[in-house]
Amino acid sequence: MESRQWGIGVDIGGTKIAVACVDISGRILSERKYPTHTETGYRAIVDTLTEVVKEISEEFDSPPLALGVGVAGQVTAREGEVTFAPNLKWRNVPLQAELQKVLQPQVFVLNDVRAATWGEWKHGAGAGHRDLVCLIIGTGIGGGVVSGGQLLTGRNNCAGELGHMTIDLDGPECTCGNRGCLEALVGGWALAREARRAVSEYPEKTKMLLQLAGGNPDALAASHLVQAALKEDPISKEIIERAIDALIAGCVGIVNGFNPSLLILGGGLGGALHQLTERVRGGVTRRALDAAKEGFDVVTSRLLNDAGVIGAASYALHNCRDFR
Amino acid sequence: MESRQWGIGVDIGGTKIAVACVDISGRILSERKYPTHTETGYRAIVDTLTEVVKEISEEFDSPPLALGVGVAGQVTAREGEVTFAPNLKWRNVPLQAELQKVLQPQVFVLNDVRAATWGEWKHGAGAGHRDLVCLIIGTGIGGGVVSGGQLLTGRNNCAGELGHMTIDLDGPECTCGNRGCLEALVGGWALAREARRAVSEYPEKTKMLLQLAGGNPDALAASHLVQAALKEDPISKEIIERAIDALIAGCVGIVNGFNPSLLILGGGLGGALHQLTERVRGGVTRRALDAAKEGFDVVTSRLLNDAGVIGAASYALHNCRDFR
Repeated sequence: MESRQWGIGVDIGGTKIAVACVDISGRILSERKYPTHTETGYRAIVDTLTEVVKEISEEFDSPPLALGVGVAGQVTAREGEVTFAPNLKWRNVPLQAELQKVLQPQVFVLNDVRAATWGEWKHGAGAGHRDLVCLIIGTGIGGGVVSGGQLLTGRNNCAGELGHMTIDLDGPECTCGNRGCLEALVGGWALAREARRAVSEYPEKTKMLLQLAGGNPDALAASHLVQAALKEDPISKEIIERAIDALIAGCVGIVNGFNPSLLILGGGLGGALHQLTERVRGGVTRRALDAAKEGFDVVTSRLLNDAGVIGAASYALHNCRDFR
Repeated sequence: MESRQWGIGVDIGGTKIAVACVDISGRILSERKYPTHTETGYRAIVDTLTEVVKEISEEFDSPPLALGVGVAGQVTAREGEVTFAPNLKWRNVPLQAELQKVLQPQVFVLNDVRAATWGEWKHGAGAGHRDLVCLIIGTGIGGGVVSGGQLLTGRNNCAGELGHMTIDLDGPECTCGNRGCLEALVGGWALAREARRAVSEYPEKTKMLLQLAGGNPDALAASHLVQAALKEDPISKEIIERAIDALIAGCVGIVNGFNPSLLILGGGLGGALHQLTERVRGGVTRRALDAAKEGFDVVTSRLLNDAGVIGAASYALHNCRDFR
């Protein structure tokens, strides 16, 4: 292959690891995926990545300039240590240092949603904006904020945890120890909880919903609610409507607090909810401060599932010492 | 007086205008106050300020390097136009341009709470921090955010409107058009509303409260609730407790979203509530994300009522072309 400046982006999730070669314009040159074996610990993942990077590099005339790794968890700023990643069952894993020991290109480890935010900002829906918020709505809700042309980090590199902003002070308990978090009302796990509650409280009215989960209440997921709502199931529609209202309330607060020019909605659940972008745009336009909503828009993620790998690679390329 | 680098800071509130001479270390050299005549419009204020600046300047050997003006309202970034200031009944007032026409030193107009945030950051409770949030709790609630060593502005210079972050999605209507805003549960006007409601619903149990307002329900203010609560009035204590719980819920979200190392609480109501700092520190420490609360603290404003004038002068000095 031709010689060019490129980097490697990695997105480590709870079930799979995506690895992509990305050029400086954010284009994916090649991509591959592997299952995540959480049971074998982080050293197995370091070994896998070491192998893959060597393998991939042989396909190119020039070596990668940098490697960016997005992880679903809290990551320290300079050292790239994963202090906590519940899905991977990691605590205080010095992933960046371990990878740097065995790999040539400079390594950067960062939070996966901040990587996706960087991707959307530099190469996706947010290109050209100096102030944007990215909200990734899946099982949980993660966020990232660009303000004044800088990706916000905060003191401990965890600014942007917008899923854990309180939007209902007497609301349901969140997994984080707070109550009424945006995630505790709108995240996939919260919707699954509401589905199970509905099935248990109204067995007669939730037959279709339960059927979609194969008759097993424990298997109920947000996706079943979305499917049932599309089939006009009243209870499922009600739960989804309530979640969208909660999301709008949260977005109004986010827009007033951060005053972005763009709100990017992404993630599996974000993509599955019918007319979500229009609904949130309408709600924010009705209810945010005049000064905050001037020139404001809501859009869906452009890079979709690739935002993480593109963002991680692009972040690493922009911050590495060899980049010109 | 001796020759030195200094600036003028102005804080235009709904009832009074404070003007201070401030040196580059944030020290007030002299200060004076004038009543705000909102009925005569902004030109009268421009005339007053023009006079005052000339008068003050004669007391010093060297002219002021810059003039900073904080206004309780929305202000555009470069032009310093006050697009909306409800207390002053101003809309689209080109205050910075009008003052610059008649004054020698470079003029900067900005939001009063962002000016106070700058003051606390450069010369007050937040000195040395790169990531802080300032929350001014008075009749309304304003905020300011410093992140990564930058005062956040957002697209329209209104980032930091933390009083209008949703914390109770089904909560009471706010004056802004949203519902359940932090301000609508914790601001002075919201507490006054709760006091009036209590007096109307429980006339027997609220005699002390009503007496503090001179027997006139329409005169009930947050300060009466605070006084009655200090005298162990049960209903007043309940309303205040509820407000503090709401404030804690909001602060947990703010800490998770912005990840500051410091939260500064100021404003008249913020100062009047007993042990507020300790309560908020305790609540945030219990409920914020581990990663967000590491190295985090809550303190009270150090500059108190002078934060606005010191901050406005300091902001102008730091940003003016003549500053070395």
